[in-house]
Amino acid sequence: MTIEAKSLWRSHGGMQGVYTHVSEACACPMTFAVYVPPHAQGQKLPVLWYLSGLTCTHANVMEKGEYRQAAAEHGVIIVCPDTSPRGEGVADVPDDWKLGCGAGFYVDATQEPWSQHYRMYSYVTDELPAVIAASFPMADMSRQGVFGHSMGGHGALVAALRNPGRYRSCSAFAPIVHPATADWSRPALGAYLGPDEAAWRTWDAVALIEDGARLPELLVDQGSADGFLQDGLRPWLLAEACKAASIALTLRMQEGYDHSYYFISSFMAEHIAWHAERFRR
Amino acid sequence: MTIEAKSLWRSHGGMQGVYTHVSEACACPMTFAVYVPPHAQGQKLPVLWYLSGLTCTHANVMEKGEYRQAAAEHGVIIVCPDTSPRGEGVADVPDDWKLGCGAGFYVDATQEPWSQHYRMYSYVTDELPAVIAASFPMADMSRQGVFGHSMGGHGALVAALRNPGRYRSCSAFAPIVHPATADWSRPALGAYLGPDEAAWRTWDAVALIEDGARLPELLVDQGSADGFLQDGLRPWLLAEACKAASIALTLRMQEGYDHSYYFISSFMAEHIAWHAERFRR
Repeated sequence: MTIEAKSLWRSHGGMQGVYTHVSEACACPMTFAVYVPPHAQGQKLPVLWYLSGLTCTHANVMEKGEYRQAAAEHGVIIVCPDTSPRGEGVADVPDDWKLGCGAGFYVDATQEPWSQHYRMYSYVTDELPAVIAASFPMADMSRQGVFGHSMGGHGALVAALRNPGRYRSCSAFAPIVHPATADWSRPALGAYLGPDEAAWRTWDAVALIEDGARLPELLVDQGSADGFLQDGLRPWLLAEACKAASIALTLRMQEGYDHSYYFISSFMAEHIAWHAERFRR
Repeated sequence: MTIEAKSLWRSHGGMQGVYTHVSEACACPMTFAVYVPPHAQGQKLPVLWYLSGLTCTHANVMEKGEYRQAAAEHGVIIVCPDTSPRGEGVADVPDDWKLGCGAGFYVDATQEPWSQHYRMYSYVTDELPAVIAASFPMADMSRQGVFGHSMGGHGALVAALRNPGRYRSCSAFAPIVHPATADWSRPALGAYLGPDEAAWRTWDAVALIEDGARLPELLVDQGSADGFLQDGLRPWLLAEACKAASIALTLRMQEGYDHSYYFISSFMAEHIAWHAERFRR
């Protein structure tokens, strides 16, 4: 469980680090980013997981997400994993941004050749939390939250729905709420999980809720000018599922915002404050 | 004076735009970024110029500078020019990051082949302000401020020192305060301005102050772990010059910070608040 610091930058009074380690779940070296806010010696800090979207690495949100100011203010550790395994021997379709590297979809693949490395669900929900707990003594793993963007919003919802009680809070920016029925995610789910779509339902937020998974509440921001809104994202499907399941969803349509980090960063501080409030309860 | 919008993103309640136009000063197409914060119809907003450092374009600070939240809060327009002319026919030394493209040093070059396009001083202090005034009706050009990073901190200091009364406020992150005597800037000044170093003094903040230029006050943040501190930046030279000239310099050494955008973004909100306070006077 050794991690190696690749970069360390003082920022907003804390420390932004980039680390690598050899992942068992993904059977390859993985890179992740951790921001540790300023804190007193011995102080324990909650851990907020940020899962990124298609094509991203750990670096995109670290550079463009504008999370450090709010994380420092609220005393929250932010962990940003990569979105897939990468490197030599890792299956990929270089021309396809919706499958393979950068498109792990936070599932555990069961189908060859993907099943050898594409186990991002186990990685972000089991292995990396254990690594964080072992390597960051100020991390209070009894107070975790999860959020993410687009494919990472899907990942956050699925992680929280599959692990009731694990995360104190879950929110998302423009999440893919029902990947099993969206054109841009169906090919990946088919490749990773096989043709039996019944097996996809445990990796799909709307289907999980339909099948009985519950969360007390959710916060979702969605830009009204998001080009993926109508076909890929469709937050109204999540709203319907939450309504039927009595899950308190706060869905905020944000007028004029698109799918970019300019959107994410605009509401980042509000999301972190929302999670922090739940960490204090 | 036509500008073309290349990108427009809703962000932090305002609009982040990227624009191109054909520059007369630089005799080539130029790209710049403008953030217009949320404001009431008819409201006039102060304009804060951000000048970027070596190797950067308009995009680096736009993506990593974290200026929009504070700009929205204080109602300040942020303009981010490029750091040099670029493109076909523009002189360059592709292997040298300290000369040519990305390294305009905010001077008006007098030497061939640079003098044809490298007129970044005229561009950022004369031409682009006129473009902003003509294209952004909410811009109040009677309330301008200027700041920047590294080479752009040098640019901000020189722009303010050469134009007393033009800018209400001037600040910098890790500025090159005395480029005429620093190894990383001397080759560029020699190339752009020629071998007579007397001509360099009007493009050098410390020399300008020594030669009588005055500003009421300056704010400078400098990271103590900045790898360029000892040889390239040397803020103590600015401190000495300001002391001798009775310029009220606030020089803050920031413990553990380096030269990166993780440093800049950490103090961006404080700088914008500092400028905004002066815009209100």
